[in-house]
This record gives sequence, C-alpha cells and structure tokens, in this order.
Amino acid sequence: MDHIEQTFQVNYSFPVHFTEHLFRAGNELFGDFLLARRGDTVKKLLFLVDSEVALHHPLLDGQIREYVSGIEGYALAGILQLPGGEGCKNDRRYFYEIVDAVNELGIDRHSYVVAIGGGALLDLAGYASAVSHRGIRHIRIPTTVLSQNDSGVGVKNGINYAGKKNFLGTFAPPAAVFNDAFFLTTLSDRDWRSGIAEAVKVALIKDAAFFGWLEANAPLLAQRDPDAMEYLVQRCAALHLAHIAGGDPFEMGSSRPLDFGHWSAHKLEQLTGFELKHGEAVAMGIALDSCYSFVSGRLPEEALQRILGLLLQVGFEITHPGLVVDNAESPLLLGLQEFREHLGGTLTIMLLRAIGSGEEVHHLDVALLQEASHYLFHYQPIHSPQ
Amino acid sequence: MDHIEQTFQVNYSFPVHFTEHLFRAGNELFGDFLLARRGDTVKKLLFLVDSEVALHHPLLDGQIREYVSGIEGYALAGILQLPGGEGCKNDRRYFYEIVDAVNELGIDRHSYVVAIGGGALLDLAGYASAVSHRGIRHIRIPTTVLSQNDSGVGVKNGINYAGKKNFLGTFAPPAAVFNDAFFLTTLSDRDWRSGIAEAVKVALIKDAAFFGWLEANAPLLAQRDPDAMEYLVQRCAALHLAHIAGGDPFEMGSSRPLDFGHWSAHKLEQLTGFELKHGEAVAMGIALDSCYSFVSGRLPEEALQRILGLLLQVGFEITHPGLVVDNAESPLLLGLQEFREHLGGTLTIMLLRAIGSGEEVHHLDVALLQEASHYLFHYQPIHSPQ
Ligand SMILES: NC(=O)c1ccc[n+]([C@@H]2O[C@H](COP(=O)([O-])OP(=O)(O)OC[C@H]3O[C@@H](n4cnc5c(N)ncnc54)[C@H](O)[C@@H]3O)[C@@H](O)[C@H]2O)c1
Ligand SMILES: NC(=O)c1ccc[n+]([C@@H]2O[C@H](COP(=O)([O-])OP(=O)(O)OC[C@H]3O[C@@H](n4cnc5c(N)ncnc54)[C@H](O)[C@@H]3O)[C@@H](O)[C@H]2O)c1
Ligand SMILES: [Zn+2]
Ligand SMILES: [Zn+2]
Repeated sequence: MDHIEQTFQVNYSFPVHFTEHLFRAGNELFGDFLLARRGDTVKKLLFLVDSEVALHHPLLDGQIREYVSGIEGYALAGILQLPGGEGCKNDRRYFYEIVDAVNELGIDRHSYVVAIGGGALLDLAGYASAVSHRGIRHIRIPTTVLSQNDSGVGVKNGINYAGKKNFLGTFAPPAAVFNDAFFLTTLSDRDWRSGIAEAVKVALIKDAAFFGWLEANAPLLAQRDPDAMEYLVQRCAALHLAHIAGGDPFEMGSSRPLDFGHWSAHKLEQLTGFELKHGEAVAMGIALDSCYSFVSGRLPEEALQRILGLLLQVGFEITHPGLVVDNAESPLLLGLQEFREHLGGTLTIMLLRAIGSGEEVHHLDVALLQEASHYLFHYQPIHSPQ
Repeated sequence: MDHIEQTFQVNYSFPVHFTEHLFRAGNELFGDFLLARRGDTVKKLLFLVDSEVALHHPLLDGQIREYVSGIEGYALAGILQLPGGEGCKNDRRYFYEIVDAVNELGIDRHSYVVAIGGGALLDLAGYASAVSHRGIRHIRIPTTVLSQNDSGVGVKNGINYAGKKNFLGTFAPPAAVFNDAFFLTTLSDRDWRSGIAEAVKVALIKDAAFFGWLEANAPLLAQRDPDAMEYLVQRCAALHLAHIAGGDPFEMGSSRPLDFGHWSAHKLEQLTGFELKHGEAVAMGIALDSCYSFVSGRLPEEALQRILGLLLQVGFEITHPGLVVDNAESPLLLGLQEFREHLGGTLTIMLLRAIGSGEEVHHLDVALLQEASHYLFHYQPIHSPQ
C-alpha cells in the first residue's frame, strides 16, 4: 500500500420556518422544533440578541424567558446582548465574549446557541458557535430583510479581521432558521430597502417571473407593505436555498452566481468606509453590471431599462461617485482584483443575457466598463414603470 | 409555504500517502499531487514548520525551496517556523501569527498551507487554515507516530482556550496527507512509543489480527525497528480512516468508539499538568478500561492479560498515582463528567468484550472502577509474552 484515498459524505439538513411572533404564547414552532430533539439530559439554550432588536422589542427578553421555561428538556443558560451592526464583527472582543459565555455556562455540542439579530450579529454568533467545541448547534432568528432572505438562510459566517470583511469565518449550516416577519416592522427605511437588492439580484439570475412580481409590487415594497415583503422574503430565501443545495454549498470552486453585482458592491462599501449599506451597494453593483451586460452586447437595452427602473422605483440610488470608471486607474477597478483574490483562483463574474438568465465570464474589459459607467451616469428614466 | 427543508450533501476526499524523503529530488509524490491541481493562475504555498522538526532536519528548509521551485504553477510564499508541542496550542499568539501571514502573503482559498510537524502543530495549523478566508486548503505532513497514524489523518483541528484542550477548533478535512517515515527517526523515545498506544487502541476495538501482529512485533517496536513501525503506522491509519468514513465523520452524535481509553487519559493528562504525553496517558486509560471490562464480566481474564502484557512489552507504564480510584471522591472520576460534557449529550464509553470487539455503555459503576483500579495496581505480569 502506498496510498489510501479517503472519501466520505456529510449530510446537512435544516428547516427554514416563516412565522410571526415566534415567542408569543401559542406559537409552538420553536418549542416543537426543540421538543423533537430533546435527549435524556437537559440541554441548554444560550440566546445572543442584537442590541437594536432588544431596544425596539423591549418585551422580547421576558417573552423568551417565559417561552423557554415551558419547553421540557431545555434550560435557559443566559441571554447575552451584543451590539448589532458591523461593529460587532469588527472588534474581536465580541467573539471572545461569546466564547467565554459558552465556556462559563457549560454550553456543549448538544446545547444550542440561539442568535437573534441582523446579518452582522448572526455572522458573529455563527462563527463563535462554529469554532467553540468544534461546533455548537446554532439556531438563527434573522431580524432584517437581508438576513431573512439571504445571509441568515445560508451556510456562511464570519468576522472582519485586519480591516478585511469576513476574513475569519467558516461554512457551518445552522440547526434551524426562524424568520419572524414582525421584526421587520421596526427596521429603519434604509435597512428595509437594503435587503430588497438581494431579491432583485436572485430574480435577475434565476427567475424572470419573480422579477415581474417585483416590478408589479415595487410601489408596495417602497411603502413597506408587510404582505408584499412576506412574499419577497419567502421567494428570495427559497431561491437562495435551492441554489446552495444544488450547487457548491461550501464554495470549493470559483463560481459564485449569487455574487452577481457584488464585485463592485464590496469595493464601494469599502470606498465609502461602510457608509453605504451592503444592499445599497449591491443595488449599484447590479446597475453597473447590467449596463456592462448591455454594452458588451449580451443584454437587450429594454431589459436593462426594466432593471434600472425597478431599482429606482424601490427607492435605490443607482449611481455613486465611487462607481465612476473613467480610466484604467479608477479605484473601483481594484475591486476586480480583490474579488479574484477573495474567490481564489480564476476571476469569475456573473453577467446577464436576459432577465432571469446569467452568464459567467472570466474577464471584464476596462473600455467596456467605462462605457457601462458612462451609460449609468447618463441614464434618464423614460417613464416611471407601472 | 410555512417552511422549507434545506438538505444537501458535501463530498470530501483526500489522499493519504506513505513515503520517505518527501522533498528529496526524485520523489515526485508531492509535486505530482500539486501539478494535477494547478490552475491558470499561480497558486501559493505557505509552509508552517514545527521548530523541533526544523532543528532535527536542518536540510529540510533548503530541500523545500529547491523542490517547490521545480513545481510549475506554484510559488513559495514563505516558510514559517512555529514552536512544536502543546505550547503552540496554548498561546493564541501563534494562531494570529499564521492568520497574519495568510493575510500579508495573500494566501487565498486556492492556495495551500502546508504544515509539517507533530500533532500539536498540525492542530494549530489546521485550525488557522480552516477559518482564514472561511477555509484555505491545507496539506498535512505529520512527523510523529501519533500524528501519522491518528491525528494527522483525521478531520479535526483545534487550539486550547481557557485551559481547556481543543476548546476552539473545527472539523476540516485536509487536502492531502503525506506520511514521511524518515521524520520518525529523530523522535525522542517517549514520542516514538507514545503513538503506539493509538494502534493498540484501534486494534482492540476493531481488529484482533492487528492486535496479534502488535504482540508478535512488540520487541521490534520497542527497539525502534523502522519496518515494524512502517507497518504499524499504515495499518493504524487505515483503520482510523475507515472508521471516520464509515461512521459519523463530524461527530454529530455522542458515540466515539475511537475514544476507547480516553476518558481517563484526558483527565490524567490534565492531572499531571501534561507531564504525561497523550499516548502515555492513553496506554494507562486502555489498561484501566480493559480491567473494568474484565471485572464487569465482559472480557475474559486471559484477554486482559494479553492487553496488559503488550502495553508493558512496548515499554508503557500502566499505572500512575492519578489512576487510583479508591473512593467516590477520587479525582480521576471527575474525568467521567468532563468526558460527558466534552461529548455533549449522553455519556458513552467504549468497553471490550473481546480483543478486537467493543461494546458501548452509558454508565460506569464506581465500585467496579475501584475493583478495576485495584486489579491494575496489583497486576503481576505472569511471563513476558513471546
Ligand atoms: N453570511 C452570509 O452569507 C452573508 C451574506 C450577506 C451579508 N452578510 C453580512 O450581513 C451583514 C449585514 O446584515 P444586515 O443587512 O442584516 O445588517 P446589520 O446586521 O448590520 O443590521 C443593520 C442594523 O439594523 C439593526 N437591526 C437589526 N434588526 C433590527 C430590527 N428588527 N429592528 C430594528 N433594528 C434592527 C442592527 O442592530 C443594525 O444596527 C454584513 O456584515 C454582511 O457582511 C453575510
Ligand atoms: N486532531 C486530532 O484528531 C487529534 C487526535 C489526537 C491528538 N491530537 C493532538 O495531538 C497533539 C499531540 O501530538 P504529538 O503526539 O504528535 O505530539 P507533539 O506535536 O506535541 O510533538 C511532540 C514533540 O515532538 C517534536 N517533534 C515533532 N516531530 C518531530 C520529529 N520528527 N523529530 C523530533 N521531534 C519532533 C515536537 O516539536 C514536540 O516537541 C496534542 O495536542 C493532541 O491534542 C489531535
Ligand atoms: Zn449580498
Ligand atoms: Zn488519542
């Protein structure tokens, strides 16, 4: 024997629930999930809560305590508040705060960490859970549009390090996700809107009918209609989940269709010192790459105009000084190189051939990018659609 | 729709090679592995080397530089030395040293971290690689008996935190393992012997024929015969790999057959302030749990005597003051509770019914443990076997 080929599979499975008032008496979803998994020793629950969520939902803490006390076979180990937003991913202290709590409260691999918050808090909590005891089960309760329809249903986590987004992190599927629509009512308008960009993105690369639905419902979405948002979150989450399950869940290759519009978005977030929110930057990135798809002869102009029209109608800005490409030295172009490094291996960028259908390329042409940027900055909506 | 069940599989596969003088000109194994995986951009290699290995193999650094310069499509990003032994897992500084190197040298998800060293250095390097960029490919080149036949071919990594072994870590299969027998020639006698305990363990729970081979070759193993050790490493690694592939690779359940003898071993390591090496403690743990298997009526006395005889003949101590159980307050007993916490969920302990065949139980009886400890401390080898 000179070599052994080791081969095995690991199966992952988790439910994503859609509900309202998860911890209100009478909502059995969360309790039923846990009861079905109880063992012969009491399992612990450690809650990690986004401070902004706690602020806007002052009854939550009491509701959780009451609710958990009714679940047989489980005990509340603690409720820890952590600052929401990017700050919690920027300072390692919060990572160690969670790890220390896991240690001191005796949370083991059969206990659960339950994280309630925006994408940032979930990314931090997911990472700390994934590396404590080589992986504690974690339940995600996303509270923003972006985290309910995109980041919170996925398999990635991470914190920032040395000024780089998500430099430390893992792929670690959650034990379950509970999307509670009620949380969305307290979001700022910017955070409400921001998450819609991911729905536009996934519709553009996967689902023309969903794009049509978004166009038809843009006014309702802009007015914060809860029913429209409920459908958007469910459809976007479903498309996201199907993509992960059908593809390369742990991203071993260089292809990332779901990163459509993201190469420039990541760079814009950084160029603006994270003044722009992720979804706001993604909306601009979608606009730019759609223009590129048009000027490079892939996408019909009429489709492009529908895309830009939808983004504007939802309330997004589609231009930004950082988005200008006027020569080969434009700062935005560094984003291409950084995106390649982030993927590792070969640069792979998603473009559009039609609404609902993408095409991957391995090179963007600077002259065409200039043209695309020029088109975008001179775009005049012909009429407000609908 | 009220819920989506997300289900997917991830496939893992990696080769484990057995060779000698991996980086000597003419040995194509390592180069061939990489050449088969080259891409259209140059991939980087970051080497992490156990300082003791570097000390005992002063030509290694030059050999690596020479060897890597001949592999097309790859570039040497750096060779970083880190202290070998448990110290590198105890101080977080080394973790950040690797992460910083990954950042500064631009090691991406398609580059490779190549770790050369004992189990401790491999655990550290594997962890830092697993969380940088959400997982950089890592190649393991284990240099101790224990890491070649056990830890280095497995899927776990970790560092110590808050005084707890492997408190932070992940499950992350390597990209490849290269076991180079030449490294074993420079081990201390204690490290040479220590790794043999894992072979005895896996033979006892899985493979009576291998146990017979170990008995027949005990004198050669004790005299550091390289051919006997080569067979031992290959057979033990193969059994270990087959167990992982066939079972629960990422240890989602509470059953850990490969932890036979380990509940008391972990405690002994801790009680002695890690004065005892892992394998030395495992030999004692095997002895104790074999005695328990006998006094609880599972294992025939003749089999027990063969086990104790083999351990002694290889040169292991089988008793230690810390191993005494004379009443319900004996410190060793805390190890049972800690082991349960470590597994999470239900206490699950492997015992023996015969050489080559185990049985899991969920409870150890203190009176029987006292009896087992008493038997062990009064054991007189009847004859030296063979
Ligand atoms: N893991 C992934 O796959 C993935 C994917 C995309 C984005 N992300 C990450 O997600 C993060 C962005 O997430 P986000 O858009 O949810 O923003 P966020 O988590 O930064 O939240 C935005 C703000 O809203 C607050 N907030 C959260 N829920 C609230 C509520 N119900 N009511 C009022 N305020 C509330 C937060 O405290 C924060 O101040 C980024 O760090 C990004 O890197 C991760
Ligand atoms: N990841 C896993 O699944 C797993 C399983 C079992 C043990 N472990 C871990 O492995 C570690 C023990 O590993 P180990 O037994 O290899 O000990 P080790 O890594 O501590 O090495 C022992 C000593 O030998 C030195 N050394 C290494 N190679 C040498 C060589 N070729 N010549 C001379 N000196 C050399 C090291 O620098 C160290 O000082 C522990 O931290 C343990 O927790 C991990
Ligand atoms: Zn995004
Ligand atoms: Zn062991």
